[in-house]
Amino acid sequence: MVGNSMSSVSFLKCSKTQLQEISDAERAKYAAFLAKNLKLDMSRGKPCKEQLDLSRPMLDILSATSDLKTESGIDTRNYALLDGIPEIKKLYAEILGVKESQVIAGGSSSLNMMYDTVQRGMQFGFGGHTPWGKADKIKFLCPAPGYDRHFAVTELLGIEMIPVALRADGPDMDEVERLVAEDESIKGIWCVPRFSNPTGAVYSDAVVKRFAAMKTAAADFRIFWDNAYSIHVLTDGAPELLEILSECEKAGNPDRVFEFTSTSKVTFAGAGVAFFASSENNVKEAKKVLTIQTIGPDKLNQLRHARFLKDKAATLAHMKRHAAILKPKFDAVTDALTAGLKGLGIAEWNAPLGGYFISIDVLDGTAKRVVALAKEAGVALTPAGATFPYGRDPRDRNIRFAPTLPPLDELKTATEIFISCVKIAACELKIES
Amino acid sequence: MVGNSMSSVSFLKCSKTQLQEISDAERAKYAAFLAKNLKLDMSRGKPCKEQLDLSRPMLDILSATSDLKTESGIDTRNYALLDGIPEIKKLYAEILGVKESQVIAGGSSSLNMMYDTVQRGMQFGFGGHTPWGKADKIKFLCPAPGYDRHFAVTELLGIEMIPVALRADGPDMDEVERLVAEDESIKGIWCVPRFSNPTGAVYSDAVVKRFAAMKTAAADFRIFWDNAYSIHVLTDGAPELLEILSECEKAGNPDRVFEFTSTSKVTFAGAGVAFFASSENNVKEAKKVLTIQTIGPDKLNQLRHARFLKDKAATLAHMKRHAAILKPKFDAVTDALTAGLKGLGIAEWNAPLGGYFISIDVLDGTAKRVVALAKEAGVALTPAGATFPYGRDPRDRNIRFAPTLPPLDELKTATEIFISCVKIAACELKIES
Repeated sequence: MVGNSMSSVSFLKCSKTQLQEISDAERAKYAAFLAKNLKLDMSRGKPCKEQLDLSRPMLDILSATSDLKTESGIDTRNYALLDGIPEIKKLYAEILGVKESQVIAGGSSSLNMMYDTVQRGMQFGFGGHTPWGKADKIKFLCPAPGYDRHFAVTELLGIEMIPVALRADGPDMDEVERLVAEDESIKGIWCVPRFSNPTGAVYSDAVVKRFAAMKTAAADFRIFWDNAYSIHVLTDGAPELLEILSECEKAGNPDRVFEFTSTSKVTFAGAGVAFFASSENNVKEAKKVLTIQTIGPDKLNQLRHARFLKDKAATLAHMKRHAAILKPKFDAVTDALTAGLKGLGIAEWNAPLGGYFISIDVLDGTAKRVVALAKEAGVALTPAGATFPYGRDPRDRNIRFAPTLPPLDELKTATEIFISCVKIAACELKIES
Repeated sequence: MVGNSMSSVSFLKCSKTQLQEISDAERAKYAAFLAKNLKLDMSRGKPCKEQLDLSRPMLDILSATSDLKTESGIDTRNYALLDGIPEIKKLYAEILGVKESQVIAGGSSSLNMMYDTVQRGMQFGFGGHTPWGKADKIKFLCPAPGYDRHFAVTELLGIEMIPVALRADGPDMDEVERLVAEDESIKGIWCVPRFSNPTGAVYSDAVVKRFAAMKTAAADFRIFWDNAYSIHVLTDGAPELLEILSECEKAGNPDRVFEFTSTSKVTFAGAGVAFFASSENNVKEAKKVLTIQTIGPDKLNQLRHARFLKDKAATLAHMKRHAAILKPKFDAVTDALTAGLKGLGIAEWNAPLGGYFISIDVLDGTAKRVVALAKEAGVALTPAGATFPYGRDPRDRNIRFAPTLPPLDELKTATEIFISCVKIAACELKIES
């Protein structure tokens, strides 16, 4: 999990003259890249064309002559089934390791379900408690580096965000437990528990159990468990994630977790199915609003997905085909990083076993500069700081690298440019200091 | 538009003995129906199987070998295009008579877009004004009879509803103008402007112009223009609806209207595409939240719809095929009502030129009883009162009849049962009085 760390001939030991020489050489390389007028995008975790092609056969699953009824006999073309069709709920219950009655299958965006859930807390509150929007102040814990779109939701809704360190086995639980025990205004936490965005961390069983059992000052504290990469494994033997809903139930906190996932990176990012899973109580509470909010999700797309993905085993086999496309891309980046940066003392990174990102910590105080240099050379990266609440990386060092979308050759070029940028920025900082 | 009214040999002129005889005869008929153990559903405006079959060919539009790019070259399978694909926005801009830049194409539920829009007003406010949720009291005008799901949204969000009479040419505009001019807490109004749910009213040009030009005490007053049945015509020569966004612009109130529509009753109720249309300012404001709220709508379904429906002319031709299925059903109901109730002084109804409903006013104080009697005989009707805010019909007389779903023979049986129930309830009331 944890990346290569600094060793041997480090920039830290170079004289300013040596650094200037390195810098000049890198600047010459960089100038050559500039001249190429490249346009490469590593900014978002988008599936590539070859991945999307894996699900093309899904478009033949429903045709003009298909039986369009659910297993339970409901015509998916008409109104009904507010919480989704039984077969897709069953499939994702199996994948998530929960009961079908704990699942709501929705539209194409799990982010939308997360937003709606936080907004529901603001407007109505949870479990009969005061609506969050009526409180003077509401706070969320934000393990960081984390997912910028989570932070954007809480920021927009005026929820104060408290960063908590994310480690290789999950958030710093001592800190989490301390904070939630003492501050009643802390109502939630954002988590990406398996192959965390961006570090690839998988929460350990111990962390999951501590989440389930911890004492919270707020009775309406909720964990937003974004299991986006639940089955998005790159390598055999990647650690499993302990199922949290049953752990919470065992620990006497059955209503603590809202879990989310989707098929966005299983089938089509632009036409997937999203899921909400929670205790039956919470599902019932969510449906009270849903029944007023919507006439229901796209059931034909759910049927298409259920018939295409079939069951957990077939879905995992499908995910292996994704991995076969993605693994060489991740390897190309980590190999290039190792060749170009290892031992220089100016970068650390992870070699993730799943998920969509490589998280790179460059020299403190240079992340923004690296991203700017890369941008100038035509390489779009996620903005520096985006992986922290309010876009503020206190050490200005974390960069999220998204290697899935570009073709392998472009990815290699982009990584080479990135390496030059890391070196140039490090030299600038060291020479100035 | 306006239905058959009372005439000649009326219940009102019958003696109690005569009424008892009528009642006995109807009760005998009713008992025969009871013995049949029927189960007929006229409660919701659902398309029937034959209507859904009209769009079966849409399921062949996209196949495993299709080009899945938009006209603008974007891969619809991937992330992007938060506000929908250009070709579907263009189609619905043409259908609604607005500019493509005024349209957002969303997921499968226009109700969801309406809910989200009211919720956005509550959370953030509109046009830089105070969020509605921060005000002590917010009110909406509710032309009634109206759509129960609209009323459910405002009720859930704690917005006070003020009923306003709905006439054949739209809401009582004298009353609307008076109320919005004097009360700043009135922030919105629910409208179904063409083939109103349930009365079938089409708002006249004069009404649309008064909406566009009226003075409102609240600077952030908004019209929720649910154009659900914009192209759902039953008969040639049905009145057109004046396009309201341009009228508002001309009148100097460009940001006054949020318009909604969907393909739920054009293609599939369970897998359609919903639309929001408004001023460019309002679209921009909506997108500020959308960009945080969601990764975007199902673009493959939008592409499927755009290629299937093609353009306005082809879509209107498709709607004629719906009308060919629906017109005989509407005729069967209105013919039976005429044969069974005309001249009795105990019911009035409309003969709509479009939309999904027949609105029936029975004798004051008998609507609940009629619905209960029908239910006992196996005919599910929309609950009496549902067409009014808070489910309270002040005269207990309005019943919404939804004739689209059942097969013609079931529909005829249900109408016969309904007629018996209307007569029985009227006799009961008259005999007791």
